[in-house]
Amino acid sequence: MAWKAIGIFDSGVGGLTVLKEVVRALPQEDTIYLGDTARVPYGTKSPETVVRYSRQITRYLLSRDIKVLVVACNTASAVALSALQQEFSIPIVGVIEPGARAAAAVTKSGKVGVIGTTATVASSAYTKAIKRINPEIEVVSRACPLFVPLAEEGWVDNEVARLTAGIYLEDLKKHGVDTLVLGCTHYPILRKVIAEVMGPEVTLVDAAEQTALTVAGILAEQGLLRPKGERGNHHYYVTDIPAGFIRIGNRFLGGDFGDVYQVNLEQEQQEEEVEETD
Amino acid sequence: MAWKAIGIFDSGVGGLTVLKEVVRALPQEDTIYLGDTARVPYGTKSPETVVRYSRQITRYLLSRDIKVLVVACNTASAVALSALQQEFSIPIVGVIEPGARAAAAVTKSGKVGVIGTTATVASSAYTKAIKRINPEIEVVSRACPLFVPLAEEGWVDNEVARLTAGIYLEDLKKHGVDTLVLGCTHYPILRKVIAEVMGPEVTLVDAAEQTALTVAGILAEQGLLRPKGERGNHHYYVTDIPAGFIRIGNRFLGGDFGDVYQVNLEQEQQEEEVEETD
Repeated sequence: MAWKAIGIFDSGVGGLTVLKEVVRALPQEDTIYLGDTARVPYGTKSPETVVRYSRQITRYLLSRDIKVLVVACNTASAVALSALQQEFSIPIVGVIEPGARAAAAVTKSGKVGVIGTTATVASSAYTKAIKRINPEIEVVSRACPLFVPLAEEGWVDNEVARLTAGIYLEDLKKHGVDTLVLGCTHYPILRKVIAEVMGPEVTLVDAAEQTALTVAGILAEQGLLRPKGERGNHHYYVTDIPAGFIRIGNRFLGGDFGDVYQVNLEQEQQEEEVEETD
Repeated sequence: MAWKAIGIFDSGVGGLTVLKEVVRALPQEDTIYLGDTARVPYGTKSPETVVRYSRQITRYLLSRDIKVLVVACNTASAVALSALQQEFSIPIVGVIEPGARAAAAVTKSGKVGVIGTTATVASSAYTKAIKRINPEIEVVSRACPLFVPLAEEGWVDNEVARLTAGIYLEDLKKHGVDTLVLGCTHYPILRKVIAEVMGPEVTLVDAAEQTALTVAGILAEQGLLRPKGERGNHHYYVTDIPAGFIRIGNRFLGGDFGDVYQVNLEQEQQEEEVEETD
């Protein structure tokens, strides 16, 4: 039998940080990555719209025969995960729960900061997830809408990035958090500046590694792990033309990756819906 | 007979600056504005994708019975205008040509700067348009991808905005331009900081007013102007939920505007295409 792939999606290129950890943890697995570059970003859009886009992408990846789906986008994890889990039968893993677990394990003071997109912060998804694990932990969160464009512009270590981080993180510092969740897949790109502003006593947590381990655990439990020693193939799909994705993706993954193909999800959806009305 | 409306579209909220000038020039006209907030921004996306979105929007506005279409988005004007003009029979006005005319009329030194999104600058649309008017004029252009998120964050007069403008505008200053085209509908929001960086000897040009006069001219020429003294109605449509559009739109228009409705263009397109295959 052919082994099915691990499906991973993000609004754009940021989820490649999660893919990287999945490949590190499970080098034998095939992956299919979809970046919705024609409609990026999700973080400034409404939950309704993000749910609609996430459904279209999940349907597309299911048509490519995946065994597990990773919602690598924090915004989509925050607002669409439960809708996807209700609608589709394969295991679906978001990044919020693993990030929350990591933060709860790391904090000593019981004060955790969370930064993310406007949509992620508005959803309170991290706060709820952390408090489910430990209701004693105090969670302070802050939307940082300029971090994504700064990362995509490559301004990750200049005065603009430092000043911006200073403004966004001021309140979190004042609250005395000892742990800061980087609640957006773009933010690890700005890790250096964020760490400088927060100071050495604050631990930065990103959910990528924890998410990869969660995926490995689910596949192991369900007997779906491919034998070790194999080497997985990796396929990349985007909804806009691939050029920008490849350029910024190389900055994220730090090297070349394979071919990237364009797909039209609106058409996919349309065919789907036409079939439904038959 | 009922008078048809003026259709105006933008990737989001920025085109309201053009709408404002259209209403000032032609207060008797009805307008229908569409902001594609579910897929904003266009400026980082490929020409192919922007053309596809622009076609969907034009079809939608035509179904609402408009007599002229204003492409208020610089990116869509730069990459999609000629495709739209070829496909649709009503007059279609972009913002590039009016902006280029204004800049050519203003410059004394013959050195014009143009700032815009990555897609607008990559298209060279302003350079070509200015050189069609006067091939002697030297045009220097620069993409400023962080200006849109800064304007939407409301950081229009702080140190981050000033530093960012300083970096983006440095080369244009060195080139000694005496005229700077604000080639994105968001940029007038940052006018103060841009003017500070460029200095008092540089004239800032935005296309909104010129575009409105172009529309007035076309309607007058074709006998489609509504009689003066009437007062137009204004309808607003967006593709994401209206909340964010209303909040940022009030910052743009400086006051309340009427009801804003949500529309699903993917569904519109789908119906359209289903009809075509009948």
